[in-house]
Amino acid sequence: MTGSTLTLFSEFLGTMFLVLLGNGVVAAVSLKKSKAEGAGWVAITMGWGAAVALAVYVSGFMGPAHLNPAVTLGFAIIGDLEWAMVIPFILAQVAGGIVGAVLVWLTYLAHYKETDDKDAILGTFATGTEIRDNTANILSEVIGTFVLVFVIMMFGQNSFTDGLNPLVVGLLVLSIGLSLGGSTGYAINPARDLGPRIAHQFLPIKHKGDSQWSYSWIPVIAPMIGASIAALLYMVIL
Amino acid sequence: MTGSTLTLFSEFLGTMFLVLLGNGVVAAVSLKKSKAEGAGWVAITMGWGAAVALAVYVSGFMGPAHLNPAVTLGFAIIGDLEWAMVIPFILAQVAGGIVGAVLVWLTYLAHYKETDDKDAILGTFATGTEIRDNTANILSEVIGTFVLVFVIMMFGQNSFTDGLNPLVVGLLVLSIGLSLGGSTGYAINPARDLGPRIAHQFLPIKHKGDSQWSYSWIPVIAPMIGASIAALLYMVIL
Amino acid sequence: MTGSTLTLFSEFLGTMFLVLLGNGVVAAVSLKKSKAEGAGWVAITMGWGAAVALAVYVSGFMGPAHLNPAVTLGFAIIGDLEWAMVIPFILAQVAGGIVGAVLVWLTYLAHYKETDDKDAILGTFATGTEIRDNTANILSEVIGTFVLVFVIMMFGQNSFTDGLNPLVVGLLVLSIGLSLGGSTGYAINPARDLGPRIAHQFLPIKHKGDSQWSYSWIPVIAPMIGASIAALLYMVIL
Amino acid sequence: MTGSTLTLFSEFLGTMFLVLLGNGVVAAVSLKKSKAEGAGWVAITMGWGAAVALAVYVSGFMGPAHLNPAVTLGFAIIGDLEWAMVIPFILAQVAGGIVGAVLVWLTYLAHYKETDDKDAILGTFATGTEIRDNTANILSEVIGTFVLVFVIMMFGQNSFTDGLNPLVVGLLVLSIGLSLGGSTGYAINPARDLGPRIAHQFLPIKHKGDSQWSYSWIPVIAPMIGASIAALLYMVIL
Repeated sequence: MTGSTLTLFSEFLGTMFLVLLGNGVVAAVSLKKSKAEGAGWVAITMGWGAAVALAVYVSGFMGPAHLNPAVTLGFAIIGDLEWAMVIPFILAQVAGGIVGAVLVWLTYLAHYKETDDKDAILGTFATGTEIRDNTANILSEVIGTFVLVFVIMMFGQNSFTDGLNPLVVGLLVLSIGLSLGGSTGYAINPARDLGPRIAHQFLPIKHKGDSQWSYSWIPVIAPMIGASIAALLYMVIL
Repeated sequence: MTGSTLTLFSEFLGTMFLVLLGNGVVAAVSLKKSKAEGAGWVAITMGWGAAVALAVYVSGFMGPAHLNPAVTLGFAIIGDLEWAMVIPFILAQVAGGIVGAVLVWLTYLAHYKETDDKDAILGTFATGTEIRDNTANILSEVIGTFVLVFVIMMFGQNSFTDGLNPLVVGLLVLSIGLSLGGSTGYAINPARDLGPRIAHQFLPIKHKGDSQWSYSWIPVIAPMIGASIAALLYMVIL
Repeated sequence: MTGSTLTLFSEFLGTMFLVLLGNGVVAAVSLKKSKAEGAGWVAITMGWGAAVALAVYVSGFMGPAHLNPAVTLGFAIIGDLEWAMVIPFILAQVAGGIVGAVLVWLTYLAHYKETDDKDAILGTFATGTEIRDNTANILSEVIGTFVLVFVIMMFGQNSFTDGLNPLVVGLLVLSIGLSLGGSTGYAINPARDLGPRIAHQFLPIKHKGDSQWSYSWIPVIAPMIGASIAALLYMVIL
Repeated sequence: MTGSTLTLFSEFLGTMFLVLLGNGVVAAVSLKKSKAEGAGWVAITMGWGAAVALAVYVSGFMGPAHLNPAVTLGFAIIGDLEWAMVIPFILAQVAGGIVGAVLVWLTYLAHYKETDDKDAILGTFATGTEIRDNTANILSEVIGTFVLVFVIMMFGQNSFTDGLNPLVVGLLVLSIGLSLGGSTGYAINPARDLGPRIAHQFLPIKHKGDSQWSYSWIPVIAPMIGASIAALLYMVIL
């Protein structure tokens, strides 16, 4: 593969690993009879931080490793990505999210059969909120994604070696999870939420409930707003 | 922006991120119905360590990234910062602390409404102590800040690449939190405590109590003493 | 020592450290009256991640530091290791696993005497599953090992300094543990499972039960399949 | 300061920070009304790992940063340190351990007054074992210190940048703590145990019990044996 095919493949593959390892830790902590059952928020946020770092290593030598439509939008706004690539990138990312979620389901096949809590099952695919409140939920996702995209752009101003880059991005996601993720479960990435939610809709899981499409627009729209604000602030400063 | 305006902006912005991500983890762990509720001290100290590392990345390519009046005082004493810049730096840092605290409030808006424990609410803004004892509380903050400022000065004697610097500073804050923070909650930074306390005073939070101004001088004065001792010891040694 | 003797010794020694530090944390968390008793899944996965990173430092300057028959197979498939070395490598790795397990037993000698839960004792040697289901268990180990081997191969495409390599491998194992390890306890390495199981069979431990040989083929065969898929995908892509 | 005075000072200062931050986390987790009370083994082992990394940064640009009589002995055996320096190094390290322990006491002054569990108080100074058994306790400390000293020597064979060195040493101590520390509390350093035990003997702590001198020889002698074995194995291999 070469050129833009390779780049799109790298977005697909990286997002697949991101969701496999990221949603994987939620499955590990939430599903019945898992050895990690009840391991808690520290496990989940560490797992997501590591997932993102590793996904960037997998993807980053073949492409820009956005792995997130909000990041793609942000970099398009500041002129680091052609606008024509935005939709193909997002499609590749969502496809990666779907496949990653299917792999999580295969990894925990026996445990999905044993688990009958439909909220717990949905939680291993898509994010949800404890307190449904459009304004508050949107604010939370906007701020979280603003931090994600703005700090990634700031990383570009620092001079560290390439090998360190995925690690600091992983640290950033760990930090957002620990500090800003308690309200909506920090989607901060439409592909990470929408892709697995599509998988949840179609996979034959015995005790699953509905896929909560009524909430699904918030983790899609709010991160796009947060990324846009980050891009605008970046352009004002630099 | 250029020159000293940029430097002051970098202190404002860095401290804003420091408090957003740092106080954010306390909010995540303390507020009702947060997914991180009860995640405990490891979550809090990891969250603060990551917050400081990321704030230094955000700020460090535009300025010295003190993000802390005690650090600013220490570096002024050893001659690394003009004395004329000390007050402007501190004002920028405190302003960053105020804005950061407001952003935490917006991130957890729905949860502040659900939480009625006024100590928990104040704890998401400013530090407090379990055992009120002026001598002991001051000692604890003096020693914690001495370690912070002295070890940061020692880092300057090591030769590591620029990209590693924020990570080791974050590790240092993680360590101080885990090891020296159990008594007073390790303010070790007047801007981190005073800025959010001002925000607490003015924000319209339903169940908040008073802002404990009677304690507020300790996390301002004691870190300044600790930083001064660190600077003096540094000058004796090197 | 020189040449291939040194290489085989490096596989033996590295796998010994890997199992000593990796199985050590399971012993620490599982055995009676250990100070780490009940420290949980975060402790176990952090311990295994650190174990692998350190084992790679110990082994990596003398040889390729596979420390895992599945990794060895994968690298043979992609042509990075002569096929003639595969069996000697695996024997050295299994021998290292046996000795590492004996050292864990010596470290916790007094605690093995106090512990009478035979499943807990076996768990400090070999992996097991909460839900016995051949298809699901194999899938889980195949996917975990696929991630391990594929991402290690991807690391080779990134340009980071040698010193960082063991750290990112450790992060990878932490991530697999947190995210994919909840079902079968992530053997993802036949030597890590088979070597200690042999030690369990022969060591004079008072309250031990049987060594569960009926399950033992899964953590041997499934990782080999996962590694093969990773190698094939690697060859398709690059 | 110059030459050997500076080197001895660096051992004193580094060990002081090592014990202040290392014993500090035990105090944080064990003393009454500390915010970290009950934070558990993960907090303790992370705290000790960070403590050692930071102590090496503080000490390492002025001297070899052994900070541990066992490490000093090991490096003397392999010829990296003049034998005439061994006793002065050890005295500087023990002195650093005493002062570090006094600083922990000052940091948690109010909490030492509130705590009446004499075992918990001693535990914030010196190590102890849950199961008193000379053979088992010695084996545990010998193996732990063997790993510490041998892996540090192996680090010297890897080529990583200076700035990474303290971090990997910290990771090593984290790993030993998690994996090998559950039995005797991993002294693995006579100065870390003896220095604070001396401080415990003399400090005016209201509810303290005796300083358990009957156990104190094990965390002094066993680490020296472990370090000697590591040095001998190192010489055989390289």
